[in-house]
Amino acid sequence: MCQLLGLNSNLPTDICFSFKGFKARGGGTDIHGDGWGIAFFDGPGLHIVNEPQPSCRSRLAEMISHHPFPASNIVAHIRKATVGAVRLENTHPFSREQWGSNWVFAHNGTLLDFTPDFDGRFRPVGSTDSERAFCWLMQEMRRRFGDVRPPLEVLFGWLGEATVTLTRHGVINFLLSDGDVMLAHCSTRLHYVIRQAPFGEVHLQDADLGLDLTASLDPDMRAVLLATVPLTRNEDWVAMPAGSLWAFREGTVLATADTLAGRIPEGAQACS
Amino acid sequence: MCQLLGLNSNLPTDICFSFKGFKARGGGTDIHGDGWGIAFFDGPGLHIVNEPQPSCRSRLAEMISHHPFPASNIVAHIRKATVGAVRLENTHPFSREQWGSNWVFAHNGTLLDFTPDFDGRFRPVGSTDSERAFCWLMQEMRRRFGDVRPPLEVLFGWLGEATVTLTRHGVINFLLSDGDVMLAHCSTRLHYVIRQAPFGEVHLQDADLGLDLTASLDPDMRAVLLATVPLTRNEDWVAMPAGSLWAFREGTVLATADTLAGRIPEGAQACS
Repeated sequence: MCQLLGLNSNLPTDICFSFKGFKARGGGTDIHGDGWGIAFFDGPGLHIVNEPQPSCRSRLAEMISHHPFPASNIVAHIRKATVGAVRLENTHPFSREQWGSNWVFAHNGTLLDFTPDFDGRFRPVGSTDSERAFCWLMQEMRRRFGDVRPPLEVLFGWLGEATVTLTRHGVINFLLSDGDVMLAHCSTRLHYVIRQAPFGEVHLQDADLGLDLTASLDPDMRAVLLATVPLTRNEDWVAMPAGSLWAFREGTVLATADTLAGRIPEGAQACS
Repeated sequence: MCQLLGLNSNLPTDICFSFKGFKARGGGTDIHGDGWGIAFFDGPGLHIVNEPQPSCRSRLAEMISHHPFPASNIVAHIRKATVGAVRLENTHPFSREQWGSNWVFAHNGTLLDFTPDFDGRFRPVGSTDSERAFCWLMQEMRRRFGDVRPPLEVLFGWLGEATVTLTRHGVINFLLSDGDVMLAHCSTRLHYVIRQAPFGEVHLQDADLGLDLTASLDPDMRAVLLATVPLTRNEDWVAMPAGSLWAFREGTVLATADTLAGRIPEGAQACS
């Protein structure tokens, strides 16, 4: 299995503090030592770092936990390999270009017998179930909507249906972002917390480290932090229900849908 | 304008020493301070770092110049912006997936009035002439060969013709790699040097720094280093002729062609 970390905010912010706790789980405080990666969106631009080694011992991960790369959307992943060897091409997040935007995907869980046909537009480079799922999502998205990106509410409704197809093959907690919106699905385990003023002091679960957010954050900032397992021990992390699909933009919940309830209606709640 | 740095070798090797000299030119010993990036292939896996700031002052570039990321194909770029703002999405190298492989592209030069139609398979995210050229190459490659990758000699012949089309719009020195082969075109300025045993001591042009390669390289290693302007002052850098297209694999020249001589024959010299 693996763990996910995501950030979606209204102002570019860094993830150094949270990443310090997260990277410790990559072979240190937890077993996810088969690779790690982190994708930062700066507007439409994307910057991804991946390594097929434990984040807890990576000098690059250590640097990223200290060096701010401000971003409004961030997707990070630490890997415990189930399908696919421990190699660079099998580390998450994965990325592809669709409709002139960079898309990024990271997965926690395992899909069994998921071997879809690929028409050639999007093809996996590595051998993970996760990259197959991502390429299939990108391919089916293109097949459904053609060359013109649909409004988010339509895309969100379609993603709910596509996710139901994937969940027939196993567990798929995922984060998917195009640098504008953060889409998240919880099969079994995913949490989020919203940080906004008035900020307080937060303490990591995985290190004896605290941070006074009042001193370090812009008072106008509003951010959603997503994690497989809560990263701090004194914040109100929300356990996302099994089968729930979420869309976040600018640190706000835009839409939720229950994929277990059957077909997802187009234009699910409050999505814009 | 910009500068290019490339490496193609038969064994994974690091580029720390050469990158120390190269990154100094990104706002230090030269004017290319509008962003930098470096792509490392580890087998088919790809790891790209980009920043829209001068490499000479980047802590990340500094780290990469000290921390070995062994790779058999590396493409690096420092940018002096001519077309497209100084933003992350406009920094090279650019990457796309084609035929289940990662492809990476970096460009030195400026193309004028190059505004091709894109059919949607590959679309630029940023606003540079360079990313347009790359997406166009990927699109036309797919249009020409469909879903099945052709043998390298056929691809090389086609690339020569495609490059002629691009050069009608201006200057395009480029590096293009899929992690197996390194393809290089010289419009105006590009050099290479082959490093193989017996190795000697080399000295950077841009820093008072030398390295005894005998002590640091595997005696079986053979590598081609490519650079817009030679990086060392005591090696036999070869100035590539204007209009020449090259294919390198495992540190060896596989093929060359003269794009100025008109149509490039399929299966150009010695390509396999």
